[in-house]
Amino acid sequence: MEQPFKIKNRLWICSADGTFLGEGRIELLKAIQKHGSISKAAQSMKMSYKKAWELVSSMNRQSPKPIVDCAIGGKEGGGSVVSEYGIHVISEFNRINDECQVFLNNKMKEIKL
Amino acid sequence: MEQPFKIKNRLWICSADGTFLGEGRIELLKAIQKHGSISKAAQSMKMSYKKAWELVSSMNRQSPKPIVDCAIGGKEGGGSVVSEYGIHVISEFNRINDECQVFLNNKMKEIKL
Repeated sequence: MEQPFKIKNRLWICSADGTFLGEGRIELLKAIQKHGSISKAAQSMKMSYKKAWELVSSMNRQSPKPIVDCAIGGKEGGGSVVSEYGIHVISEFNRINDECQVFLNNKMKEIKL
Repeated sequence: MEQPFKIKNRLWICSADGTFLGEGRIELLKAIQKHGSISKAAQSMKMSYKKAWELVSSMNRQSPKPIVDCAIGGKEGGGSVVSEYGIHVISEFNRINDECQVFLNNKMKEIKL
């Protein structure tokens, strides 16, 4: 009989200052990549600009290099770009997430519930 | 330099009917083990009796064998006991959780953020 249970996981990467990366933050970074702007990314996620800006600021503050470059223009007209380092960070997070899911799926085959 | 980032995870085991086990449900089972009653366990977790009963009922419904035996007495006076199968389930959940954390800690040593 096939195991009727599935296992799901959710990851966070934290520093001493709290959450650095999590699914929501990765989703926001992907939206910034897509829209080229924090405010448009926030809109697309039905998140306030303030919240999105705080999340970006928190990530940039905790990381050795900026994850989002907000240098182009001002708060109103300027765009934002996920840095090369940011792209690396997204890819590493997704890789660990995927590998963790494979690990857990294999564990589920081992156990008998 | 020591990696300043830590990784955390949260697991759920689900069936076609939704969540079967998660950290909150495991905590509730441990409280039932400790207090010998769903209502006292709920109280100790500042959870309503209704919510606790629904969680226990959901777990019992989804599992091949009862996880909590509520047979002794009635809604008011009766006690509840985590079954032998329930104890097995708690232990398997905790084991996967611990092994997953070890897996993730090792992954964090591999990656460069």
